[in-house]
Amino acid sequence: MRVAQVDVAIIGAGTAGLAAYRATRTAGATAMLIEGGAYGTTCARVGCMPSKLLIAAADAAHTVARASGFGVHCDGVVRIDGRAVMGRVRRERDRFVGFVLRDVERIPQSDRLCGHASFVDDHTLEVDGHTRIIASTAVIATGSRPSHANSLAALGDRLIVNDDVFDWRDLPNSVAVIGPGIVGLELGQALHRLGVRVAIFGRGGRVGPISDPDVLAFSIATFKREFPLEPDARIANLRRDEDRVVIDRTLPDGSRQSDAFDYILLATGRVPNVQGIGLENTSIRLGAKGVPEYDTATGRTSNADGSGANNSPIFIAGDAGNFIPLLHEAADEGRIAGNNAARIALGKPMKANPRRAPMSVVFTDPQIGIVGGGFRSLRPGTFATGQVSFEDQGRARILLRNKGLMNVYADTATSRFLGAEMLVPDGEHLAHLLAWALQNRMTIDQMLAMPYYHPVLEEGLRTALHDANAKLRAARLAVSEPA
Amino acid sequence: MRVAQVDVAIIGAGTAGLAAYRATRTAGATAMLIEGGAYGTTCARVGCMPSKLLIAAADAAHTVARASGFGVHCDGVVRIDGRAVMGRVRRERDRFVGFVLRDVERIPQSDRLCGHASFVDDHTLEVDGHTRIIASTAVIATGSRPSHANSLAALGDRLIVNDDVFDWRDLPNSVAVIGPGIVGLELGQALHRLGVRVAIFGRGGRVGPISDPDVLAFSIATFKREFPLEPDARIANLRRDEDRVVIDRTLPDGSRQSDAFDYILLATGRVPNVQGIGLENTSIRLGAKGVPEYDTATGRTSNADGSGANNSPIFIAGDAGNFIPLLHEAADEGRIAGNNAARIALGKPMKANPRRAPMSVVFTDPQIGIVGGGFRSLRPGTFATGQVSFEDQGRARILLRNKGLMNVYADTATSRFLGAEMLVPDGEHLAHLLAWALQNRMTIDQMLAMPYYHPVLEEGLRTALHDANAKLRAARLAVSEPA
Repeated sequence: MRVAQVDVAIIGAGTAGLAAYRATRTAGATAMLIEGGAYGTTCARVGCMPSKLLIAAADAAHTVARASGFGVHCDGVVRIDGRAVMGRVRRERDRFVGFVLRDVERIPQSDRLCGHASFVDDHTLEVDGHTRIIASTAVIATGSRPSHANSLAALGDRLIVNDDVFDWRDLPNSVAVIGPGIVGLELGQALHRLGVRVAIFGRGGRVGPISDPDVLAFSIATFKREFPLEPDARIANLRRDEDRVVIDRTLPDGSRQSDAFDYILLATGRVPNVQGIGLENTSIRLGAKGVPEYDTATGRTSNADGSGANNSPIFIAGDAGNFIPLLHEAADEGRIAGNNAARIALGKPMKANPRRAPMSVVFTDPQIGIVGGGFRSLRPGTFATGQVSFEDQGRARILLRNKGLMNVYADTATSRFLGAEMLVPDGEHLAHLLAWALQNRMTIDQMLAMPYYHPVLEEGLRTALHDANAKLRAARLAVSEPA
Repeated sequence: MRVAQVDVAIIGAGTAGLAAYRATRTAGATAMLIEGGAYGTTCARVGCMPSKLLIAAADAAHTVARASGFGVHCDGVVRIDGRAVMGRVRRERDRFVGFVLRDVERIPQSDRLCGHASFVDDHTLEVDGHTRIIASTAVIATGSRPSHANSLAALGDRLIVNDDVFDWRDLPNSVAVIGPGIVGLELGQALHRLGVRVAIFGRGGRVGPISDPDVLAFSIATFKREFPLEPDARIANLRRDEDRVVIDRTLPDGSRQSDAFDYILLATGRVPNVQGIGLENTSIRLGAKGVPEYDTATGRTSNADGSGANNSPIFIAGDAGNFIPLLHEAADEGRIAGNNAARIALGKPMKANPRRAPMSVVFTDPQIGIVGGGFRSLRPGTFATGQVSFEDQGRARILLRNKGLMNVYADTATSRFLGAEMLVPDGEHLAHLLAWALQNRMTIDQMLAMPYYHPVLEEGLRTALHDANAKLRAARLAVSEPA
């Protein structure tokens, strides 16, 4: 067995691992980047990029379908060429993956290792039995995979996850999506708009990352008008019937219904890849579901010695840590963990890194946007909610995209903006504006003093901010004049 | 003749006048709002709103035309129903105008007067010979009109301005646009995308509000690929030929070319409505083109008494002042002027109002965005320019909208963000993000510490900011290590 000695061993060459590698080298440490599978990131292979490609095609189909509202007609048949749609998705996906591979190839061969790494102890990793790595510190960047249910094995190749969709050569006739989370909503709506018969089923009533009851109810109603969506379905059974899958469920009135689909797309979340890498041989304290506990400001995991200190030599970054499974956060975490792993290896003190204002976007239409921790993170009684409907918002109506609801939250004591939840057209852009305002610790008054062009969707946001100010005044009046 | 005495007389009930009226009343003063034409704002009648409606239809046609790039085909003919297109434009335009009229109707009859107002002296206005208004202060909010050339009178009804377009019942076959400014570009490109044969001619090489040579050259090249655009055309003659108009011009090689169009759309800017309102009877100092000089922080005009002080009792707001002819600025100016006119009338000191960070957007595709004073406002040698092309920007490419260039400017001494010029997809949103950053006096480093989701167009902006930082470092190195 070969033995290699490095400052930092990095397990996983995805977004977090690549960022960790670069940060480690920049910090002046030696590093070994170990990849157990094919090179390429979750984002480029099966995540952000191919899903946005599919959505771009779906949006084109949707725009063509509603163009007559503007006086633009297709005199003939609108034909969605499934092979062409999926051809572009795969071709462009491969191009994005190619960029990642090119980045990997720029890393010196001596710093890369292919194989499955497993901890022997805190400072020792074995790779496929051929190489032993002795490292001062390590970064776990093993990513995540779609969660799978063993109980559904009988569905065979008719049970798929999002990864499978992006290898399709053509569009199927029908797909049932289990899980109205980010992936389920994005792919479900896109396939629906591309002419696939789609139904989305959930459990417990949640939809995407929404926690605000107003926005949740509005979103469910909005999506339901476009395609079948049951956020709290009572599924009794999933079974294979020749080349199809049948879903047996109980309707609200107690009756039973069975629907057949070509595929079941299981989109019930992702699980961190932290099994089978020998964590049990390390001093790391494992939390829920066997995921290491760590300090998100430094990336360092906690020791299991009971000291409560994050003084383990092992760091974690990206989806493997199960903190915020988003590309830009994974890149930040990789950078933070890689830098600190290098600093510890070189005998330097760590640097705690401020995290960016949280935001998440679901690329449905309208788009879901969450800024800050969202409604769920706020303590009742400490904040006021400003609201705007986009049904009559000028620009949205001009664009025939006047469907939307936005709630913004403001601190009753300080008038500071706390975050927002929304289902609005172009939500990705409004979410950026608001996330920057949040990170800048702006008050509602300061935000209202900013420029709003005309006619723009941002004027809808302004209406919500005015409403928040009115609610803040009312809340203060209620405090200063108790009944 | 009736005589009415008020604190504040407001001339013009457009965007600025209505805002001035509301601010005056809120400040506790009495006011008379005088309108010489039909009620309704430039924005709603002939400006922002109807142009965006036409553009929305054009964008729909454009999306349909390029949908095949995603695998979405119209098997048949794409038919643009000109009557339906213009029908929606007029119908929705009338709806927006209706909102303005409803706002006007909410103003008490006793506070409104129809007729043409003219100053008799600083404190006296005569309205159509039927009413005399004695006012402590006045606000001129008479707006603007498209500039017209008397020399072109021979073209008759074939010479039109943007106002005329929005009353069309159908789309014409061909239009020559004179003036590649904001209006000319927006309408020209929209008509082109709606199947009208369009050519745009300018003089001097300018396009829209762009002053950055890189962005200008890129914009001209981009638009030229889509439709005929001659920013520096040598037009020898415009003449009527039966039902058409012929443009005779000299080509760069010296040869002559004549092209016939159904209409000439004159879009050579707007002129303030400050003639014929008796300014010569007031103490106001008139500047270039007879437009009153005024303090943009208070709205107060300058006295002609040579004192240099802005102590005239007359204020000005909106397009009439010819400062920044944009709706949101007109509304701010109306509010500022109305409030200060009321305060002076009531014997109170004025309030100077900080203006918002300047921004302007041209709703072409890609969109032009200018943040801050733009390139022209910067002193050479004091700033660094960061640049990004959107040709390979990930999300832009996914959307098949990967055409764009953005320059961002940073102060060499302080690293503060100074503004930007761009021709990029969704520029309106990026311009808001940047205008807020400008008003927040952010440095490039602070902007880079903000969240950028993935995959989004904002990541293109981030690339430009990284480039600006590299240029700042290079500029400092050059200073600290002179050759």
